[in-house]
Amino acid sequence: MTISFHEPYKAGQALDYIKHVIESGKTSGDGNYTYKCQSLLKKRLNAHHVLMTTSCTHAMEMALHLIGLQEEDEVIMPSYTFPSTANSVLLQKGKVVFTEVSRDDCCMDVSRIEEKITPKTKAIMVVHYGGNACDMDTIMGIARQHNLYVIEDAAQGFLSTYKGRALGTIGHFGCYSFHETKNISAGEGGALAINTLAPDVIKRAEYIRQKGTNRQDYCLGEVDFYQWVDIGSSFCPSDILMAYLYAQLEQADVIQALRSKVFNAYQKLLEEIHSDKIAHYATGNAFGESNAHIFYIIFKKPTYATFFIEHLKEKGIPAYTHFVPLHASQMGQSLGYQPDDFKLEIALHQQLVRLPLYPGMTEATQHHIKTAVREVLDALDHREDMPDDINRYSCI
Amino acid sequence: MTISFHEPYKAGQALDYIKHVIESGKTSGDGNYTYKCQSLLKKRLNAHHVLMTTSCTHAMEMALHLIGLQEEDEVIMPSYTFPSTANSVLLQKGKVVFTEVSRDDCCMDVSRIEEKITPKTKAIMVVHYGGNACDMDTIMGIARQHNLYVIEDAAQGFLSTYKGRALGTIGHFGCYSFHETKNISAGEGGALAINTLAPDVIKRAEYIRQKGTNRQDYCLGEVDFYQWVDIGSSFCPSDILMAYLYAQLEQADVIQALRSKVFNAYQKLLEEIHSDKIAHYATGNAFGESNAHIFYIIFKKPTYATFFIEHLKEKGIPAYTHFVPLHASQMGQSLGYQPDDFKLEIALHQQLVRLPLYPGMTEATQHHIKTAVREVLDALDHREDMPDDINRYSCI
Repeated sequence: MTISFHEPYKAGQALDYIKHVIESGKTSGDGNYTYKCQSLLKKRLNAHHVLMTTSCTHAMEMALHLIGLQEEDEVIMPSYTFPSTANSVLLQKGKVVFTEVSRDDCCMDVSRIEEKITPKTKAIMVVHYGGNACDMDTIMGIARQHNLYVIEDAAQGFLSTYKGRALGTIGHFGCYSFHETKNISAGEGGALAINTLAPDVIKRAEYIRQKGTNRQDYCLGEVDFYQWVDIGSSFCPSDILMAYLYAQLEQADVIQALRSKVFNAYQKLLEEIHSDKIAHYATGNAFGESNAHIFYIIFKKPTYATFFIEHLKEKGIPAYTHFVPLHASQMGQSLGYQPDDFKLEIALHQQLVRLPLYPGMTEATQHHIKTAVREVLDALDHREDMPDDINRYSCI
Repeated sequence: MTISFHEPYKAGQALDYIKHVIESGKTSGDGNYTYKCQSLLKKRLNAHHVLMTTSCTHAMEMALHLIGLQEEDEVIMPSYTFPSTANSVLLQKGKVVFTEVSRDDCCMDVSRIEEKITPKTKAIMVVHYGGNACDMDTIMGIARQHNLYVIEDAAQGFLSTYKGRALGTIGHFGCYSFHETKNISAGEGGALAINTLAPDVIKRAEYIRQKGTNRQDYCLGEVDFYQWVDIGSSFCPSDILMAYLYAQLEQADVIQALRSKVFNAYQKLLEEIHSDKIAHYATGNAFGESNAHIFYIIFKKPTYATFFIEHLKEKGIPAYTHFVPLHASQMGQSLGYQPDDFKLEIALHQQLVRLPLYPGMTEATQHHIKTAVREVLDALDHREDMPDDINRYSCI
């Protein structure tokens, strides 16, 4: 039995919708399916405005342009995140300032944010890990007090909520990913939620997204020709990808229900097992609904995680650690950080293991994985004096 | 009879290939079709290395990262181009220095380049207008003499040649567009040709393209895990789009032959008409094969162009001017340029008109357009004392 770590949901209408696009000849950005996705997202998220983008990375780059990030402006973010969060700041010559996450949910430790604020701080980039919501009330309070922007990196947070509100709609800007590995996918794609009511932000976002041109004004008949009006890049996804995404968005509730079922079964299993080699495991979103994006187990030692991964692998089950903390990566160290600067993040890298989780997982596969997890944890509980082997990494 | 300005070629295999991708579940970047496109392009262009990108805009941004553009470094480019050429420089805090094009081919006037070079000049961005090749021997000579990089913006130049070599493979880097409006399309997409033999450039290009990570090294088994190693962004196109593109690339010769037939018919028509209101028209690529991307007519006065466009429109035929010169656009003026700084470019904007041109144009449509062009030009030749109306713009 060979088991996938992830299998994207196959929405039945995807090919038909793509066929519509190809037959229409309108395969570039901002076709019908782009606007259908945009409307659906705006309604579903109850967002002020949404723009479809080529990726979550690009949505974050747009947000940083929109807040007017200047050279040497500082942006606070967790080290335990994907490189795009930091690159979006560096690309605009800003300065990345890392802050701690909490072991309980791998989200920002709000008690450590204020000590990072300086007169140069411009924004906080909040990362909602694995669909867990960060403590947004506290973060927004800090931001208000210090006059900072809040950008939500909700790459993994689409359809999770915080006190009834969709993640990505609480800060000034929210960035979503529809990459193949996400719950809902466009293959490659993303979206930017614009939550600020400041005038002209939406218009400027459209300029930046459309290669610095006022093409949108031209399409709306507001100007007679379009021209270069701003900086910008190519952030409009092909309508072929938006057709693929729209078919998935229509099935979002089905996809989420299937994921939640797997997630809940894992959680129940771990509750039953009570392994003393485990420090913590995913228990859902403390602040609202969870999108069941990742089910993770955090082991007490790196060697336990390695043992778990290797023995599951022998049974044909892929399980992976996750982020190399940015501060400890090659690029983070070139910025002056040392691995020891954020110890919990190093531990998470070495001790957090993700289990397979996808909507189409059969009962038989779930049973096989659960049996294997039980067996491997049982074997682990009977091993003693395992050395710490802190140099083991695995990443998909 | 309603006539399109452009209709993308519909390659018969596109939907089948897309189906393969969706069924495989591998819809994100760097799947099988990405590598098939890359191999095909490398061979077809006889290029040192090619990387598929999300757009030509992003290929240019990559090239500027790869040459190590620093703040205030100057990059020489024509004003008569699309905003992305300039934005790619501004996004990296470089300085855009415009230079003149020649009326004969709308390509860079090589006699005006050297006067723009200062100690801060880092690169020349060459724009091959409408598939016309710039004078690359002269430009490369200037670049060698002043130790400058040359980046070819071959957005419109795919499959045109310069003295037997593919456009985009002569400078240090070449950037191609596969946007819907181009001869060969991915909906949205592009490619970067890496022509420099300097070591590690390809590796760094892969890092930048893959969000600043060494994921490629990981996939090749060269490292045990992947991490943040460089700046970068999300420049890998979905394999769904690469499947669509691959079907088109397989038909490239068919597409080119169909386009050339229309182009040649227009050229023959204009030769026959000999209108004294026309200054110039497209005659193909002076330096090699033409990809027949644009057929344009340059009128002697803006009013003639307006008359031509409006009367063709009455006959159901769309015809458009092209670029608003960057120096005269809102953004160009905010950089300190005045419209009068480049007079020929303003004239081109007002006096160059593009005719419909696409591979699937029927004989009946071609006949209808040619008849209409003949009639409108005849009517124009019999009009006298038309005022100059320099404020008319039209742009698609």
